[in-house]
Amino acid sequence: MPSSSRGAKNLTIGVFDSGFGGLTVLKELLRLVPHADYLYFGDSARLPYGSKSAETVARYAISSAQFLQHRGIDLLVVACNTATALAFDRIKAALPIPVIGVIEPGAKRAAEASRSRSAAVIATEATVASHAYQRALAERGIQSREVACPLLVPLVEEGWLEHPVTEQVAKIYLAQAFDGAAPKSPQPAADVLLLGCTHYPLLRPLLERITPEGVTLVDSAESTAQAVAEYLRECSADALVRGPSSPKPSLHFFATDSVEKFRRLGERFIGRAVENVEHVDIDQAAEV
Amino acid sequence: MPSSSRGAKNLTIGVFDSGFGGLTVLKELLRLVPHADYLYFGDSARLPYGSKSAETVARYAISSAQFLQHRGIDLLVVACNTATALAFDRIKAALPIPVIGVIEPGAKRAAEASRSRSAAVIATEATVASHAYQRALAERGIQSREVACPLLVPLVEEGWLEHPVTEQVAKIYLAQAFDGAAPKSPQPAADVLLLGCTHYPLLRPLLERITPEGVTLVDSAESTAQAVAEYLRECSADALVRGPSSPKPSLHFFATDSVEKFRRLGERFIGRAVENVEHVDIDQAAEV
Repeated sequence: MPSSSRGAKNLTIGVFDSGFGGLTVLKELLRLVPHADYLYFGDSARLPYGSKSAETVARYAISSAQFLQHRGIDLLVVACNTATALAFDRIKAALPIPVIGVIEPGAKRAAEASRSRSAAVIATEATVASHAYQRALAERGIQSREVACPLLVPLVEEGWLEHPVTEQVAKIYLAQAFDGAAPKSPQPAADVLLLGCTHYPLLRPLLERITPEGVTLVDSAESTAQAVAEYLRECSADALVRGPSSPKPSLHFFATDSVEKFRRLGERFIGRAVENVEHVDIDQAAEV
Repeated sequence: MPSSSRGAKNLTIGVFDSGFGGLTVLKELLRLVPHADYLYFGDSARLPYGSKSAETVARYAISSAQFLQHRGIDLLVVACNTATALAFDRIKAALPIPVIGVIEPGAKRAAEASRSRSAAVIATEATVASHAYQRALAERGIQSREVACPLLVPLVEEGWLEHPVTEQVAKIYLAQAFDGAAPKSPQPAADVLLLGCTHYPLLRPLLERITPEGVTLVDSAESTAQAVAEYLRECSADALVRGPSSPKPSLHFFATDSVEKFRRLGERFIGRAVENVEHVDIDQAAEV
């Protein structure tokens, strides 16, 4: 772990996602690790990853991760469930710095929360097809049922966070996840619902309303930020987590599609104005 | 227009789309121009185009069109509304062969069908933002209202063609398109609904049910195939349209993402088995 005490320079954390969802991880990171500098990369020209093949996702993810590495990050957070599920080992192998993904922290937190040793996982088509959560949960003795929810990302991006249509769609998916257990049933088989996509925290209030009683929601975005904070504590980089606010942290964004759209949509995910956005032509950048 | 009488070789028509929607145009082409050979290119690794910026879409579309040109097509059909809306002139300028897009044929057919001289257009976010249909219709003396329908493509790709959720979503969009006119109202302002996205023909039965009475549906996929047939007739390539079936036409597909997924999803759009699919790494291909 590179030291954070190189003069006045903060440690720089790179956060990478296919687009906007990773901003929910960044939002939690800013809360839990407020004294780092952040470079966020949203591969918005090639999104979504969630419906694409492992080969394509790995290629996109590695070029995006390498872009951040060339910008001098000390630690990479793969804030995209699909990229973590399909390409984590390859991203890790391609980078000479520590890399933290979203699957392990989410699975760890779900295992801690489950008493019935059974969890439901909702995620993109590609994440579900990879069974990365199923494996990570099984290693912790937790059975799981994974359900692909391809419509939730477009609904979030449409801004229909509390819309009757979104509720109806979410109910259909949750019925699959909970195996026909009636909503508000006292003893569902699974007692944890793992939100395996970084878009889903925006639907948390709606999902909490319609999830069977007694089920704990575990959010992979929040779990990942907690894992980063723990990792920094273990590396004796406590100052980043709890230290004084000086030197001032900085926040810089890169987007491969329109900067204007990144600003506009990004605000919804991070809950603050999105400034310092720079356009990147990733095909050109990849050749450097 | 290259001749179709070069020995036994059929004329080869290239059909390009961001993914699967263009297959609805190909389906109509196979019906109306059955004696050409077809190369279809689906840029499925970079889809969707509909939510991306003009700059990104133009870059993707030109590299895809050039790939087909290098494969020896005689005529290119841009079977993607977003690519046509945002990059038609640039694609045309980049290729030394005739290029036909979907906007002009759709607008022409809508103008022929409208008596009230007013049309409603439903399309992707990017197509609507470009106002390409509005301009093409205005040139023909038709006023229009354009409504972006970002959820319809994901719903089609989920296969929910007759699902209550899709009906509810479509009703919301149509209410915007018809300015609050009650469904089945006898005199809506617009008397044409232009389906400005090549995914939408799959929703035609549902849309026909919920469109106000007296409104004619115009499908840009069908209109484009008709425009290609007319163009070939004008070029005295009648044999392609109505001639004998020998030599046998061929059908070859290229996809930039998973071949398996292209086959599986493609069948829904074209209504027949999708064989002869070849994977293309477009980033590599672009460097050639």
